[in-house]
Formats: sequence, C-alpha cells, structure tokens
Amino acid sequence: HSKQIVLNEGKRLRPYLAYLMYCAMGGKDIEKALKFFTALEIVHSYALIHDDVIDRASTRHGVATVHKYISENLSKEKRLGDLNHIGNSQAILLGDFLFSLSAEIFSLNTDFELDNIQTARKYFYKMVDEVILGQMLDVDVTTKEVVSEKTIEEKTRLKTSRYSCVRPMQIGASLANPNFSLEDFCENLGTKVGIAFQMQDDLLDIIGDEKITHKSALNDIAERQHTFFTNFVFSKGSGEQIGYLKSVFGKKVTEENKDKIRNLFIDSGAVDAGKNVISQNLKMAKEIIENSSLKTEYKESFLMLIQILEQRQG
Amino acid sequence: HSKQIVLNEGKRLRPYLAYLMYCAMGGKDIEKALKFFTALEIVHSYALIHDDVIDRASTRHGVATVHKYISENLSKEKRLGDLNHIGNSQAILLGDFLFSLSAEIFSLNTDFELDNIQTARKYFYKMVDEVILGQMLDVDVTTKEVVSEKTIEEKTRLKTSRYSCVRPMQIGASLANPNFSLEDFCENLGTKVGIAFQMQDDLLDIIGDEKITHKSALNDIAERQHTFFTNFVFSKGSGEQIGYLKSVFGKKVTEENKDKIRNLFIDSGAVDAGKNVISQNLKMAKEIIENSSLKTEYKESFLMLIQILEQRQG
Repeated sequence: HSKQIVLNEGKRLRPYLAYLMYCAMGGKDIEKALKFFTALEIVHSYALIHDDVIDRASTRHGVATVHKYISENLSKEKRLGDLNHIGNSQAILLGDFLFSLSAEIFSLNTDFELDNIQTARKYFYKMVDEVILGQMLDVDVTTKEVVSEKTIEEKTRLKTSRYSCVRPMQIGASLANPNFSLEDFCENLGTKVGIAFQMQDDLLDIIGDEKITHKSALNDIAERQHTFFTNFVFSKGSGEQIGYLKSVFGKKVTEENKDKIRNLFIDSGAVDAGKNVISQNLKMAKEIIENSSLKTEYKESFLMLIQILEQRQG
Repeated sequence: HSKQIVLNEGKRLRPYLAYLMYCAMGGKDIEKALKFFTALEIVHSYALIHDDVIDRASTRHGVATVHKYISENLSKEKRLGDLNHIGNSQAILLGDFLFSLSAEIFSLNTDFELDNIQTARKYFYKMVDEVILGQMLDVDVTTKEVVSEKTIEEKTRLKTSRYSCVRPMQIGASLANPNFSLEDFCENLGTKVGIAFQMQDDLLDIIGDEKITHKSALNDIAERQHTFFTNFVFSKGSGEQIGYLKSVFGKKVTEENKDKIRNLFIDSGAVDAGKNVISQNLKMAKEIIENSSLKTEYKESFLMLIQILEQRQG
C-alpha cells in the first residue's frame, strides 16, 4: 500500500519544477540532484498524510488514505480500542517519519558543494515552514463563518505558490548554482502557477470527474473549506444561493445533494469566474517565461508545463 | 501559553545529558553548543505535542495540553465545526513546525567543524527515527490484549533509552569530538538510565502524587497502555486481580475506582517489583560511571544525576 501511495498518480509537480530549474541553471549531475527531488516527493507524502488526517479524507490518488487503511486493517485483525483514533495516530507518526527522512536527505548530503547544499537547505526549511503555516491557516479558516478574500489568497500563497512552486524551483536552481540570478523569476512564475494550480484543485473538487481525480468530490464543502468558489457565492450569489450554501457548508455531502451543490457553483457564475482567473494566471505565467533570460530550450520546457496545466483534468 | 509549555517544569534530562558529555569530551564553547541542546528541547516539545494528541491527554506539566488549550480557546470564541478535531489538527501542525525548527538548527549550523556537526546530525536523525518507531510500537501495543515482555522492553529501548539518553549523549560528545571514544559508554549508561527513567514514569502514573507530577494519574490504564506494571499483574496476579485489571483497562478512570486500581498494583507486588528493577538499573548505571575512563569531576556530575533520579517524585 505504501508503494501504491508513493508511486501512484501523483502529479510530481514539485520535483519536476526543481528539475527544470536545476537544468536551466546549468546543473549537469541529474543523478545526484535526483536524491533531492525524491526528498521533495517524500516531504510531500508527509504533508498529504497529515493533511488527510486533518481533513478526514478517506481516499487519495484512488486508494484509501493512510489513516483509513491502517484503521481498516486493524479492524480486520479485530484489534482493541478506538481504531479510527489509532489509525490517525499511526498516520501522524508515519508522516513524522517521512518528514524526518526528507530532512535527513537534505541534512546529511555531501554530494554537492557546501555552498550549494546550504542554500538549498535554507529554501527547504522555508518551504516546510510555509506549508505548515499555510495548513494552519487552512484549518483556522474552516472554523469561521466568513473569510476575507485576502485570507484565501494568503493561504494559497503559502500552501501552494511557495510550497509547491517557488521553493522547489529555488531548491533546484541553488543545487546548480547557489548564486543563481533568477530568484525573482522563481517567485513570479511560481506565484502565478501556484494560484492557477490551487484554484484548479478547488474547481476539480467541485466539478471534477471523481473517476479522473480519484478524490471524493465536494470534500471542501463537507470540511467547511473556504475557497475562491465558496467566497464567490457568499459575496456575489443571490440570497437563495447563499442560504443554500450555508445550509450544506460543513456537512457531509450526500448523493442526493451532490448535483444541486455543483449546479449552485455553475449557476452563480463562480465556476466561470474561477476558470477565468485560472487562465489569466496561466497566461501571465507564459509571459513571465517568454520575457525571462532563460535559454530557448528551457523556455520551451516551462511553456510545455503550462500547456499541461491548461488541460488538467485531475 | 506556549512559553509556559516550553519553560515550565520540564526535567531537561536530554539537554543536560548532552551538555555533560560535551564537557566530558573536552568541549569548551558552551554557548555555541547550547543551540543544539535547545534544539533537543524543541524536538522534545514536538514529540510531546504529538504524543498528547495520540494519548488524548488533557494536562501536561500542570497546564492544558496544546490541543486541549487550542480547542478550549476556539470554543470560547464560538468558532464553528468539530473543535476537538480542530484542536488536534492545529497541535499536529504546531508539532510539525517545532520539529522543522529543531531540524533546521541542526541543518544550517556552521559554528562547528563540518565533521563534528555532520556526526551530530547523524545521531540526531537516529534519535528522531527511534522515538517515532518507539511511539508507533507504543500505539500498536494499546490495541492488543496481551503483549510480551520483550515488546515492552523494545518500546522502552527506542522511546526512552535511545531517544532520551543514548542519542543526546552521543550528540553532545560528537560536537566536542566526532571521534570520541566513549560511544559504548553512552550506549550502556543511556540504556540503564533510560529503563529506570521510563519505569519511574510508568510507576508515577500509578502511585505518583498528581500535585507533583502535574499529569492526570492512571492515564496509561485509560489508554490501554501495557507497561512493566500491567504485565506484572497480567502474568503474576491472582485470577481476581487479572479480572479486575481487564475490566478497567482501556476505560476512563473514575474518582471512585482510582484507589482500587492503585491498590491492585501495590497488593499484587507489581509496585515493589518495579521499584526493585528501577534501583537495580540505577545501581548498574553508577557502576558504569565509576568504571568509565571519565575524569573524576565528570564522574561526579553523572553520579549526581543518578542520585537525583533515585529521589525522583515527579
């Protein structure tokens, strides 16, 4: 199962961005750098495992989440106690272990010049701290009736732009050259890609095909997670639409009200508005790439990634 | 509150052991080494915060545990949702953050020679991995009706001997000298001290004065935690004693049955047997110190620590 979780279905956005920047900054030793890109996937596994405990999610990448898998197996073995809680506990510890493993890879490595690896480490800890703070904000937001647009943006900036894009790019770049000149490029491109990627996630949670996303749909609604889309309805929807969203927000979604909730987001215009913001951000991302000082071949690689994101379905 | 948690009441066993070994191995720059000893306390805060979520403990060091404190405060603010779960979630994330902080201190430090710090790092990750594995075993044990003595010993070896004693000593020693000769001394002394320390913890959970321990008593019983003492009753108690322990194991302890449970451990001989094992281990620890190649002044410091442990009440 752990193999399935690590090898299945992940989009590998973070290691790929790190890899692209490593190459673009002149890095030649892909095999050695690969250890760090792997560490980025490991740290992401940690984040997802804790995230799934926090969000009480039951499936991820088409298979049972770790805590669910553990509690189901202990239950089959007829173990004693509150097995849901035990499943959560072991998942927390497994997450801790994976986090430790990834930090260890960054800490003990001696394959690169000290200056390169030391710079990469600094970005690594920034990345980890940002995703944790973003998650704290994420959890906090679920306890509030109303949330400002600024708070949602800040959450996206920390959890997605910085963690999933900017920092992996900077890690890859600094392994190749600790004095790389494109720090702003990473920040600017990573921010746009991060916003688009997060909003796609939020959109797929609403209208995505569960057969493709391999996640249970409308989990954000059940977990009272404020997103661009819920904020759109709350601020621009009709009285009836707002009332309906309030009535289902934070409650388990049933097969009966699934379609009604989806239609709410479509009819209120939230889906179209969101799609528009996504394509604007991807358009700006392309401009940033084209206007950068990257060599043509790396421009093309980055542009291809944007193209893949434009067509993303899961 | 976070200040209270970090500054209150902790026994500081880990940083103190690291400090003693640092000095004993000829370390002179206490101020620089102090950063690492602080990191040992920070990593311990992380472990305790996750531990308290896992054990559903409500007080620690005389104040509310982190998850409890957060959920109580959100409740005062009339926040929405399952606030116990939110408290747990934020505590998991705060623990993650503290872990990241301690790993960062070990990762980014440049105050020591690379060889010293690299050796200290290796012990740090061993220490973290051991405490996590020990905790996993700890959780697993609570789901079982019967547990072997060997399993309980392995749990103590990982969670307490290695994590709280052996590894902190090795970290302190390697900061002073990465080729220090006393690795076996750390292993042997740390093992004895760890066993005694863990069994004292388990004993204090049973007969400790809550006003001194500042922990809720008999939490191990409520959480179905197998220890030397429960195993003693299960294997050497009378049929009646075994039956009674089974009837309260894994259930909330009430004011009414508190004394009866305490008396069970006293009357069955478990308390006396445990006290005997504790003093045997502390006696062996003293012999290890006396037979070591340490300078007299450091022997005396270690012996004083053993003396403090002999008198430990909380």
